[in-house]
Amino acid sequence: MITLDLNLIAAHLEGLEETIIHRLIDRAQFASNPDAYRPGHSGFRGAGGKSLFDLRLRYQEEMDAAFARYLVPEERPMHHDLPPPRREAQLPTTPLEIDDMDRVNVTPQIVRGYLEFLPRLCDVGPGDDGQHGSSVEHDVLAIQAIARRVHYGALYVAESKYRSARDLYAPLLAAGNREEILRTITRPEVEERILRRVSQKVDYVQATINTAVRRKIDREVVLGLYRDLIIPLTKEGELRYLFNRRVTGSSDSRSGTP
Amino acid sequence: MITLDLNLIAAHLEGLEETIIHRLIDRAQFASNPDAYRPGHSGFRGAGGKSLFDLRLRYQEEMDAAFARYLVPEERPMHHDLPPPRREAQLPTTPLEIDDMDRVNVTPQIVRGYLEFLPRLCDVGPGDDGQHGSSVEHDVLAIQAIARRVHYGALYVAESKYRSARDLYAPLLAAGNREEILRTITRPEVEERILRRVSQKVDYVQATINTAVRRKIDREVVLGLYRDLIIPLTKEGELRYLFNRRVTGSSDSRSGTP
Repeated sequence: MITLDLNLIAAHLEGLEETIIHRLIDRAQFASNPDAYRPGHSGFRGAGGKSLFDLRLRYQEEMDAAFARYLVPEERPMHHDLPPPRREAQLPTTPLEIDDMDRVNVTPQIVRGYLEFLPRLCDVGPGDDGQHGSSVEHDVLAIQAIARRVHYGALYVAESKYRSARDLYAPLLAAGNREEILRTITRPEVEERILRRVSQKVDYVQATINTAVRRKIDREVVLGLYRDLIIPLTKEGELRYLFNRRVTGSSDSRSGTP
Repeated sequence: MITLDLNLIAAHLEGLEETIIHRLIDRAQFASNPDAYRPGHSGFRGAGGKSLFDLRLRYQEEMDAAFARYLVPEERPMHHDLPPPRREAQLPTTPLEIDDMDRVNVTPQIVRGYLEFLPRLCDVGPGDDGQHGSSVEHDVLAIQAIARRVHYGALYVAESKYRSARDLYAPLLAAGNREEILRTITRPEVEERILRRVSQKVDYVQATINTAVRRKIDREVVLGLYRDLIIPLTKEGELRYLFNRRVTGSSDSRSGTP
């Protein structure tokens, strides 16, 4: 059984930060390359109006679908018409109480927000270094790391909070009081701690970078990504989870606190 | 034109070190999971005697082939029956003097060496945490980063060294004196510097890791990978490049020193 201990969930989220930072640094080694995101400029035969980025995301998700990635709750795809898994994967029992994980899927918002953020990450401006293939390859890896963090937080933090304060959440959900629920799930001191820790990590992992051979990224840029995209979308996912959580049936009659 | 300045080539190789280290750290978050490498245990329908690792590498290379990755000299695939690129990619003119880049391809040795090294990286021993899909996904990313470093070094360092000492190399090559060429391309002081720098980086990039939430890797393990696999295979690739370099024709009549 996967844990619903809020401290262990927070620890897992913390452990995902390095991967996000590493992948952003890898992407930042290339220019922003706007043509790689322009519809119809992929250079692919028969790709119609898709961009090279669109195609890379599609290919990656088709491959990952074959490997059963999207059976994992926190791995949510951008596409909804992916081929079925070719692999039988063993998954641990989930403590989540939701019938369709994709009710929580905020991948479209992650992709949109990431692409808006990209010019700040590749801070040489709207440059083109010709490395379009490498750029979109690293984009997709970065987006997957961000999406894993957002959806893991959305699902498990929401279920954990709900179970520890069922009497608080149940009436708010019944009344559809989105605003008050958002206020209740928001913990400003935790958000502050995450932002401080992430921006410190950005500097630490780059402490020995030889800037003559490798581009450095700005802690403020990553801090902005967490503040404006990752944290708000995690909370949006939490709200979606709570509003789509099973409220009747035997599964809800269990003890309220884990 | 891509540079043949040995200092700039060395700088590029240095810039690839962080990516290798980051990907090894990402892989080390999972157990060694030996079943993911056992033939016939992939869980894939119709996969015959392949392992999950074999399949992931195959899928990844098929996708990358479609995106024209293997038109880039230093990107050498493991498979030789990949589909043709679906994309028209613009590549810079190459200063390399070899007809078939795959004469230098040491990917099979890289994969074999990496898999032997894996239990030391995932130092919890021959454990199984059930995360086979994530394990092989990160394996393939790590192998690609290592292979890029090895082949970039093999190709460009060898051409650069050849051009700067054509009178030295040409007779040794004509005589097939492999041993003496190996001695000539070996620079122990450069190797020592790389090993020292890489092992320092392993500690620096992990300086803020909270070991309660994320597994740390040992600098000695990465040092061993560089000393026993990456550096020797780069030199093996250099030898292959030199022995397959074009020796006649107009392309060889250019000035000897860059």
